[in-house]
Amino acid sequence: MKLGTVVQGDVSRAFRQDDTGTYYFDEPDVDAVIKRSDWRSLPVHKGSPPDREDLLPPVQRPGKIICAGLNYYAHAEEVGKTPPDVPTLFTKFASALAAPAEDLVIPALSEEIDWEAELAIVIGKRVKAAGPVAARAAIFGYTVLNDVSARDWQRRTSEWFQGKNFDRSTPIGPVIVTADELDVEGGVGVECAVNGVRRQSGTTADLIFKPADLIMYITQFMTLEPGDIIATGTPAGVGMASKPPTYLQDGDTLTTSIEGIGELVNVIRIDRSSAQ
Amino acid sequence: MKLGTVVQGDVSRAFRQDDTGTYYFDEPDVDAVIKRSDWRSLPVHKGSPPDREDLLPPVQRPGKIICAGLNYYAHAEEVGKTPPDVPTLFTKFASALAAPAEDLVIPALSEEIDWEAELAIVIGKRVKAAGPVAARAAIFGYTVLNDVSARDWQRRTSEWFQGKNFDRSTPIGPVIVTADELDVEGGVGVECAVNGVRRQSGTTADLIFKPADLIMYITQFMTLEPGDIIATGTPAGVGMASKPPTYLQDGDTLTTSIEGIGELVNVIRIDRSSAQ
Repeated sequence: MKLGTVVQGDVSRAFRQDDTGTYYFDEPDVDAVIKRSDWRSLPVHKGSPPDREDLLPPVQRPGKIICAGLNYYAHAEEVGKTPPDVPTLFTKFASALAAPAEDLVIPALSEEIDWEAELAIVIGKRVKAAGPVAARAAIFGYTVLNDVSARDWQRRTSEWFQGKNFDRSTPIGPVIVTADELDVEGGVGVECAVNGVRRQSGTTADLIFKPADLIMYITQFMTLEPGDIIATGTPAGVGMASKPPTYLQDGDTLTTSIEGIGELVNVIRIDRSSAQ
Repeated sequence: MKLGTVVQGDVSRAFRQDDTGTYYFDEPDVDAVIKRSDWRSLPVHKGSPPDREDLLPPVQRPGKIICAGLNYYAHAEEVGKTPPDVPTLFTKFASALAAPAEDLVIPALSEEIDWEAELAIVIGKRVKAAGPVAARAAIFGYTVLNDVSARDWQRRTSEWFQGKNFDRSTPIGPVIVTADELDVEGGVGVECAVNGVRRQSGTTADLIFKPADLIMYITQFMTLEPGDIIATGTPAGVGMASKPPTYLQDGDTLTTSIEGIGELVNVIRIDRSSAQ
């Protein structure tokens, strides 16, 4: 099953989709649906599929967005790192999220806006100190995310945060696919294209830390809650590792897709008015 | 004026205090009060001062907790860094916060639990691309925070996040003092003691990036919202820079205080049951 959040006039609405059609919940977003253990039996109303432009980030207010860096063997190699023994973790706040078809309006403060197509885990249950079974059971589903990064800001200090948290720079969606429908460990394709030219093409079979590994690691010290997001890292092919390095420019179309989930299509808009 | 949040049976309540007494709002926490531009005229009910043990983190669900590292000249020196040109920023999630008198129950996964007394800014207004005047106007007030850090986890990777986000490890409070009552740039004392022995004693006059500087820097790329927290960094005297390095042990009492705001008193409890 797929779930998403769509704007309808002044309000938003959660929906689910399967082979039989699109059904709208009374709940305003997937955040509200996911908190209900009985969400599969909540009342719904059949309707037309949403327009792409009306899609919102499926989870609107995740309490945590935790990102794994260096989590594909080939990407660790392209940036000159040995595969790590423990995951490198950094964070985003919900203010960084953008909708699946939204223009990414980025202040003209960075010369190095780069792409990172990623599979993102959506947590469905409160979980702490998880073993493998509890970790898998805590996964509500998966979505697509592009960890758009201002590399120059990311490298200003040891901490990557400031290059990863420009307002509304991280598209997510278009929907969440429930965990039962996606064989992540078997391998699903993760792709990124710029103006139709493929730049990243990986498979989640190459993840160093699998979704359950990440949940087990994080929940040693931190409780995860329904709606929390874990971005699992990006495969090889980022712009900064290209020869020569290549970055996103005003007007570029960024397409981020994962097999079995869907695609994000976002146009880059460099906002020169907001630069200081 | 001072504001805080207190537990009352099954619910919580915001309060304010001045020379004339303690007044309780109908709002459940300072989060709700701070969102009201008319908060000074909200109805209140006079009552007894709260017991220390009933105090909660004054802000219960900050959307963002942004922390500045290396922000006192003497602390940068003690950890062997030159004073930076830009602030080093990392983050906590609200799940890391603990109450002013709460035991800090930490899983026995770290051998290096350290202290970092800090002044924290509480944002009162939505603010983006702030200049100096807007930055100062966005400050609702200040509180005390101890950025308790698992140094071994902090150093596992380049990103400090995992050493800074153990559940309920970061005490905050006891109250927020409104910005008009604290001369941060003039200098207020920031102190930390372990079992009554003073380990840190600094003044905010030595901050490299002042509160308004941090807000101007962050809001170049990111919108701040009412209730967001910025921890301004810690003065010299952390455990890892002691000779020999000294860390917190089970049963230690950690006292964190800032002149004009108040103090946090937290006992460290190492939880061996939860270690894997």
